[in-house]
Amino acid sequence: MRGALTLSEIATRLGGRVAGDAGARVSQVGSLEHAAAGEITFLASPKHRAKLAATRASAVILSQESEDLTSLPRIVCDSPYLYFARVSQLFNPRTAQAPGVHASAVIGKDVKLGEGVSIGAGCVVGDGVSIGNDSCLYPRVVVYHGCTLGERVILHSGVVIGADGFGLAQDEAGRWVKIPQIGAVRVGDDVEIGANSTIDRGALDDTVIEEGVKIDNQVQVGHNCRIGAHTAMAGCTGVAGSTRIGRHCAIGAAAQILGHLEITDRVQISSCTTISHSIRKAGTYTGLYPSSDNASWARYTAWVRHLDRLAGRVRALEKEKKK
Amino acid sequence: MRGALTLSEIATRLGGRVAGDAGARVSQVGSLEHAAAGEITFLASPKHRAKLAATRASAVILSQESEDLTSLPRIVCDSPYLYFARVSQLFNPRTAQAPGVHASAVIGKDVKLGEGVSIGAGCVVGDGVSIGNDSCLYPRVVVYHGCTLGERVILHSGVVIGADGFGLAQDEAGRWVKIPQIGAVRVGDDVEIGANSTIDRGALDDTVIEEGVKIDNQVQVGHNCRIGAHTAMAGCTGVAGSTRIGRHCAIGAAAQILGHLEITDRVQISSCTTISHSIRKAGTYTGLYPSSDNASWARYTAWVRHLDRLAGRVRALEKEKKK
Amino acid sequence: MRGALTLSEIATRLGGRVAGDAGARVSQVGSLEHAAAGEITFLASPKHRAKLAATRASAVILSQESEDLTSLPRIVCDSPYLYFARVSQLFNPRTAQAPGVHASAVIGKDVKLGEGVSIGAGCVVGDGVSIGNDSCLYPRVVVYHGCTLGERVILHSGVVIGADGFGLAQDEAGRWVKIPQIGAVRVGDDVEIGANSTIDRGALDDTVIEEGVKIDNQVQVGHNCRIGAHTAMAGCTGVAGSTRIGRHCAIGAAAQILGHLEITDRVQISSCTTISHSIRKAGTYTGLYPSSDNASWARYTAWVRHLDRLAGRVRALEKEKKK
Repeated sequence: MRGALTLSEIATRLGGRVAGDAGARVSQVGSLEHAAAGEITFLASPKHRAKLAATRASAVILSQESEDLTSLPRIVCDSPYLYFARVSQLFNPRTAQAPGVHASAVIGKDVKLGEGVSIGAGCVVGDGVSIGNDSCLYPRVVVYHGCTLGERVILHSGVVIGADGFGLAQDEAGRWVKIPQIGAVRVGDDVEIGANSTIDRGALDDTVIEEGVKIDNQVQVGHNCRIGAHTAMAGCTGVAGSTRIGRHCAIGAAAQILGHLEITDRVQISSCTTISHSIRKAGTYTGLYPSSDNASWARYTAWVRHLDRLAGRVRALEKEKKK
Repeated sequence: MRGALTLSEIATRLGGRVAGDAGARVSQVGSLEHAAAGEITFLASPKHRAKLAATRASAVILSQESEDLTSLPRIVCDSPYLYFARVSQLFNPRTAQAPGVHASAVIGKDVKLGEGVSIGAGCVVGDGVSIGNDSCLYPRVVVYHGCTLGERVILHSGVVIGADGFGLAQDEAGRWVKIPQIGAVRVGDDVEIGANSTIDRGALDDTVIEEGVKIDNQVQVGHNCRIGAHTAMAGCTGVAGSTRIGRHCAIGAAAQILGHLEITDRVQISSCTTISHSIRKAGTYTGLYPSSDNASWARYTAWVRHLDRLAGRVRALEKEKKK
Repeated sequence: MRGALTLSEIATRLGGRVAGDAGARVSQVGSLEHAAAGEITFLASPKHRAKLAATRASAVILSQESEDLTSLPRIVCDSPYLYFARVSQLFNPRTAQAPGVHASAVIGKDVKLGEGVSIGAGCVVGDGVSIGNDSCLYPRVVVYHGCTLGERVILHSGVVIGADGFGLAQDEAGRWVKIPQIGAVRVGDDVEIGANSTIDRGALDDTVIEEGVKIDNQVQVGHNCRIGAHTAMAGCTGVAGSTRIGRHCAIGAAAQILGHLEITDRVQISSCTTISHSIRKAGTYTGLYPSSDNASWARYTAWVRHLDRLAGRVRALEKEKKK
């Protein structure tokens, strides 16, 4: 916590309109259910009005349509969730780790570290790596040789940047011959990558994560991919090699995007969806097979394997009809 | 190995009835196929009787229905597999790592370590973390600041507890604004978490893993989830943010459970199943799309995309019939 | 880079036929698009002829059918991609890490390290581990006690070999009882395993990865699996416990193979496919549910749940017809 602010001070910094006691002081954010006195919460939708009625928070961020649902001191704004994010940033540092290189980190030769960079315990930074100002590597991150990170990049524990891509050629006897992976990884400004995610180095050219990309935990990005600026990728997603994803895309959890595809800008891919063709048009794409209680699933899924035969029977009936 | 026991000594400790030579001595467990003399094996089902006939084990654990399938010294019990687990625990320590903090581990400020805690090489334990008695962190585990682990918790290598959840708000320009993740993770007693699994800290309130939960490798649990006591989650499973899973559930490998759902107690989710709705009733739920040889798959899957048209043709035929 | 070679010197070592200036010198490989002067590139297929026309490379590897598409110095061979792999190996070392044990690595008791072994920063090698000649562990690999690695094995950062398998028995109260995992992992010669992949130790017998297997990032192999020689497994794949995969198989990205199955030799499994039955016959197997724009998906997927009823309606129409 960085000291209390009045609602009026907050609105001066972040905009919005104060209703109720503008001198109410808050020093931290909290959820509707668990906020304590001295904390400010937010109402994302009027459907949570029962929780709002019961909150112990000292103030609320809400939209104009919800303004009259409480008499608590409040800030009225267009996007309560976004406003809340910014208020939380006022009270909480961007990362939980102080600048500097931890004594147990291993830094290679010819490494360039910007100002304010924080390298956590047990990190390993390879030769020739460059890390921009104010970036933070939490403990146990590995950045292989020759990769570059922009400014304000956050890498969570267990992230591996720049391991070899899966480049293999098959010989006459069916044995795999390794193709040296001599590209690197370039990570833009303001990228955040979650715990245990992996971004492979390029085979020849570089793998590129553009500025503002946000990647969740356990995401795998193959060699020579390019992820466009301000795209978000939720947990357990995989992107196979040489695929290019556009800007401002949102990839749902555990989606899989096959290799050598092009996904244009502003594409939303639903969770657990596999994309096996390029996508040229913005929009939402889905490929989720429905789950049910086991007996129902077995009943309908048994027919999936016979769909072509079922279609044949329909065709036969149609022919019959025409006679 | 901790020294030999006779079958009679084992039955005194663990129950069951000895048949054959009660003085037979064993000092380790083994599989039917590969057990050596001095080892005790188990028969899970009478269908493995051929392997039983060929085993070189010195003794067998089996159920009453299988008692007469061998003349080896044996222990007859209700649940041979469970009994076997307990016998194996007699001969093998719970973890392979001695108590104490390895010299290469990094321990933060205000950390509370219970008695008998084992912290492996290269672990990083953040400020304010609390770890209960007899817990074991294998090498290279990271526990971020402020998280708590109960007693007898086992975390395998590469586990990351308490990295930031994937909390983002979108601004007017479509850029992602980070929401500070100020909750923590609370892990209950007797929890085991497999290699490279990740449990994110809460956005505001805590992420909670209740007592007795068993999590396999490469599992991802998002922020603010609650996993109920004695639930087991197999490898590669993902649980998106704010989902609550009940007690005594079993989640199959690579299942994906979307965010903000409620799964009640005693739910079984089959492997590779995506759950996109809350589940209010105990039972087994499945959503596996069938695989086949490639040609068959192509044949029936081509019809999936045209199912609504196929249904329309059936409807047309039905209308025709009524005329 | 290890010094320049003429095309003629390359062909002497690797075979193939030189066309154009056999004295042209190259010292590195590059892509068609980004190769610079002094680099040699390759043409995988005549369909990339436009890129070939624009390349700045000094030489090209191509097949006989493409020989006349360029006047650049070139090497003509049967398998340009394989040839390219071998040329790249001439110019680039197999691994980016020098032999020796990094000062920050932790090596247990009774460890056997072969000649030329490279153990990177922060690696942890457990008691009794054996590592064959010329193997390379990149930073932050963990090998648990008692596991063995062959020669020329490459393990990328974050790999965990030999953590406990997910072996549990349920007691009368529905609590999970841990089954000690007393097997180990045996990894054959020339195996490469990608970043953050995990191979569990066996419950009783060993988990085995045979020679020449190539495993990509974030792959999970459960206890007691056996992966046959020269099989390749792409990223995010999971193999549940006790499954045996044959030799010369290719497992696509994010495929999931359930437990206790047998997959024969020379099986190809498509990306994102779940295999729930044993496969006795070589060939390609697929189980991908199609994705579409969200509205189309919703339209056809709604019918999946009603497939048995749709089939019933077709049957009713057929009966009607027979009257």
